[in-house]
Amino acid sequence: MRGLMQDWPLLIHKVMDYAATEHPGRAVVSRSVEGPIVRSNYAEVRSRALRVAKRLTQDGIRLGDRVATLAWNTARHLETWYGITGLGAVYHTVNPRLFEDQIVYIISHAEDRLLFLDLTFVPLVEKLADRLPSIERYVVLTDGAHMPETKLRNAVAYEAWIDEVDEDFRWADFPETTAAGLCYTSGTTGEPKGVLYSHRSNVLHAMMTVMPDAFGLSTRDVVMPVVPLFHANSWSLAFAAPMAGAALVLPGPKLDGPSIYDILTTERVTFTAAVPTIWFALLQHLEKVGGGLPDLTRVAIGGSACPPAVIEAFERKYNVPVLHAWGMTEMSPVGSICSIKPEVQSEDYGALLGVKATQGYAPFGVEWKITDDAGRELPRDGKTFGRLKVRGTAVARRYFRREEEEILDQDGFFDTGDVATLDPHGYMRITDRSKDVIKSGGEWISSIDLENLAVGHPHVAEAAVIGIAHPKWDERPLLVVVAKPGMSPEKADVLEYLRPKIAKWWMPDDMVVVDEIPHTATGKILKTELRHRFRDYRLPTA
Amino acid sequence: MRGLMQDWPLLIHKVMDYAATEHPGRAVVSRSVEGPIVRSNYAEVRSRALRVAKRLTQDGIRLGDRVATLAWNTARHLETWYGITGLGAVYHTVNPRLFEDQIVYIISHAEDRLLFLDLTFVPLVEKLADRLPSIERYVVLTDGAHMPETKLRNAVAYEAWIDEVDEDFRWADFPETTAAGLCYTSGTTGEPKGVLYSHRSNVLHAMMTVMPDAFGLSTRDVVMPVVPLFHANSWSLAFAAPMAGAALVLPGPKLDGPSIYDILTTERVTFTAAVPTIWFALLQHLEKVGGGLPDLTRVAIGGSACPPAVIEAFERKYNVPVLHAWGMTEMSPVGSICSIKPEVQSEDYGALLGVKATQGYAPFGVEWKITDDAGRELPRDGKTFGRLKVRGTAVARRYFRREEEEILDQDGFFDTGDVATLDPHGYMRITDRSKDVIKSGGEWISSIDLENLAVGHPHVAEAAVIGIAHPKWDERPLLVVVAKPGMSPEKADVLEYLRPKIAKWWMPDDMVVVDEIPHTATGKILKTELRHRFRDYRLPTA
Repeated sequence: MRGLMQDWPLLIHKVMDYAATEHPGRAVVSRSVEGPIVRSNYAEVRSRALRVAKRLTQDGIRLGDRVATLAWNTARHLETWYGITGLGAVYHTVNPRLFEDQIVYIISHAEDRLLFLDLTFVPLVEKLADRLPSIERYVVLTDGAHMPETKLRNAVAYEAWIDEVDEDFRWADFPETTAAGLCYTSGTTGEPKGVLYSHRSNVLHAMMTVMPDAFGLSTRDVVMPVVPLFHANSWSLAFAAPMAGAALVLPGPKLDGPSIYDILTTERVTFTAAVPTIWFALLQHLEKVGGGLPDLTRVAIGGSACPPAVIEAFERKYNVPVLHAWGMTEMSPVGSICSIKPEVQSEDYGALLGVKATQGYAPFGVEWKITDDAGRELPRDGKTFGRLKVRGTAVARRYFRREEEEILDQDGFFDTGDVATLDPHGYMRITDRSKDVIKSGGEWISSIDLENLAVGHPHVAEAAVIGIAHPKWDERPLLVVVAKPGMSPEKADVLEYLRPKIAKWWMPDDMVVVDEIPHTATGKILKTELRHRFRDYRLPTA
Repeated sequence: MRGLMQDWPLLIHKVMDYAATEHPGRAVVSRSVEGPIVRSNYAEVRSRALRVAKRLTQDGIRLGDRVATLAWNTARHLETWYGITGLGAVYHTVNPRLFEDQIVYIISHAEDRLLFLDLTFVPLVEKLADRLPSIERYVVLTDGAHMPETKLRNAVAYEAWIDEVDEDFRWADFPETTAAGLCYTSGTTGEPKGVLYSHRSNVLHAMMTVMPDAFGLSTRDVVMPVVPLFHANSWSLAFAAPMAGAALVLPGPKLDGPSIYDILTTERVTFTAAVPTIWFALLQHLEKVGGGLPDLTRVAIGGSACPPAVIEAFERKYNVPVLHAWGMTEMSPVGSICSIKPEVQSEDYGALLGVKATQGYAPFGVEWKITDDAGRELPRDGKTFGRLKVRGTAVARRYFRREEEEILDQDGFFDTGDVATLDPHGYMRITDRSKDVIKSGGEWISSIDLENLAVGHPHVAEAAVIGIAHPKWDERPLLVVVAKPGMSPEKADVLEYLRPKIAKWWMPDDMVVVDEIPHTATGKILKTELRHRFRDYRLPTA
């Protein structure tokens, strides 16, 4: 028997309709790519999004078509998302930090028909345009006055383009499971894989992130997503802020410490979110200029594990609570947020910091488990670590145009590729990537834990740990280190330093000093390359 | 093109699974019907709900069957809801305050197969049992020691009944649009009408109410729904609290001022919700005993309009912010919550109180409009009032077993039966019921506004205003008053008192003094009866 409630599909344009109706004058402030601060509001964003939808329709864009964006966080970029999804097309955010070949690959794989791009990226796109045959038109997110000379196909300035139509457009009608957004993962191995979000998943995910123990957004908030719109939906903030009636501040292309501090302060931002690198830069700048953060009521940090020192600096020095978060493109992206349950609240800041350094617990809408390689669930004791697998309302079930490929286990869980512990209070701590964990005699050793400990040695600048084949134990850890300038770390000395800190069987079987450890474009250790380099290495214990 | 995200249906048991997994030890405290305070938690509630589901299955209850409850707010009542919905059956909450004939009508209309009832209601149900042929078994929510002698068909004590099974039960699998709950409206005219909630509507509605500008529930909250589970889902708190990981305090049968104050204080409740009557009683008790409300961080008041004096007492005397709310059974029930947007924030408490006395604005998931009788939308100017119509994710589209009856307009809006203004900031104020508003020469006069003003006159104890037929103006207002003891209100004097406070054309054409004004069971003025009494009344102006 069906319930007798209204059929009110969870569509993205309902979020903007809501914001424009209930919070029409709430500010949407952008640092424009042209330079100046530009002020808008939800009523205006909606009105312009309607024009985007109408104008795209005139360009022949239809339900299900992919429209790419290569742009910073600005109101114009936001408008294109709502315009694209409002007619049932799919926004495809292209990460400009990808390698050029990857950009060409994903635009071609997605068969994007139109590309919105910022002025910043015109030179890049001009260089690649010959290899982007699917793009029928380039819309440069600027006005006529700033429009550069370009030979890009059918190039037009955004403002001139939308000026050709009015806002008399009715959002299209379609089921909530309709595709809305596309974001490719930038794996270190293999081709990028596309995650195809639906209207439903984006709306539910936003509802989840608005909640008090997630980002806790309200009409009193001024929300600045430093995390880019091209980085997994900017952690949902492009949807969550208008849903909550919160003001938005979009920092445009300037993400350095001084620029972020300037806009945080002048716009009186209360909530912001970004990866740790951004916050390192901000804290360094604050050290230099001696400023404070009086308006900020909390900061979300994710994308990679946040060092406890950064959490402590925000909380103790600047009185800004940190929400450590974890997620991935396949999770829309939020998988967990570290808010403090009463049972882990503590007067002892050291103990509290221990909790805050975990990736937090699952919000409603995310289910998870840790398993061994055979898929058997492991205990939530805070010690045992296993493959972290997730299921939920905004988790991928397939990759775009690889639909034949099963990516869920028999219970519908997606393997995150992370290795983690879950403690009895539900807090999850990432201990490794599953391809990097060292499997020694059926037990797992966390390469990340060993690396974090090793860099505590006074002579070690950077450390990487990889598994090396071993005749008896399958794999044993090899510690690879870079020396601090003028220092010469000694194997015996470093291992002795580690001894009291780790289980006996975690002790690396050997240590090697190298000049440099290879990194990915985003600064992570490139373990595939390292493993390749040491593929013939023979441990002294073997 | 469909998105490629997981199919994770919004099912009620996922809320309890979530609470039992992420917040297993969070307290669920009940004042039992037997007397003592009983402590449980979400892990235990889930475990017992699984046994309820398994035991119901053994009693032959199947997907779509209706199971009634006639019970106070306790953990046992909560368990029955999750047990019933977890196998795909439908909880039907019976309001014990209905007239006996109405109780018989709704149980028969719903064809409830089993009834869970509190000890309190055994005598009532014994009296009605002969007229309840659909009920195959009565389960009394108590243990063997407290089980009374009764001839109710197949009567059994709840604890003995669930003790026959273990918790080895798998929640049933069905679409999220499946019916989950049934609640009848208690209209003053006609038979009660059943609103049939779905799993989806209840879960989405709970997500909406958890948000910061709604009830704003978190793991640090101790939530006490004084509003009964049989009163429109206790405003969603039975779902919203476990979803947020908040503790629950269930006050059982004792809803008087001293009992509520006792449990509020000893259990350190941070959030509570009820109708104004409950809060009158609490405030009166506080006046008497001189206590404070140090743990309470906000109180939600709805069900009927909350007098500004009650709001002011909570806020100024006890430092507890009030969330004025409005809704109805057909809305699951929350339609609006009066949280303060920055644009109406004020240092002037009088101005702020003016906002807080409105019913608030629509949360995400509720759309509304005001229209004239012809369905034309009216301006949101804070002055024009019209029929309030709503649309949304948890709004009824039909009544149960009256599916042939269209209750939505052509745009899918449901007419609430309320007349309201919407101001430019989005705040809604109920000015009347649409059947009570006085239609004079094409303009509407609010009977409630006139009544509220008239009771300000020193000689008037109570006032009611009804429309009387008029040859020229269609209707004109008649003011009916009850005198204060020993007073004799004079027509000329009362109308003179009103004159500076109202528009000229709002002035009642006559005033009548009566001994008593008729009321409904819940204390509202029974205008149908009053109109009937004055059906032959001729205005002096006619």
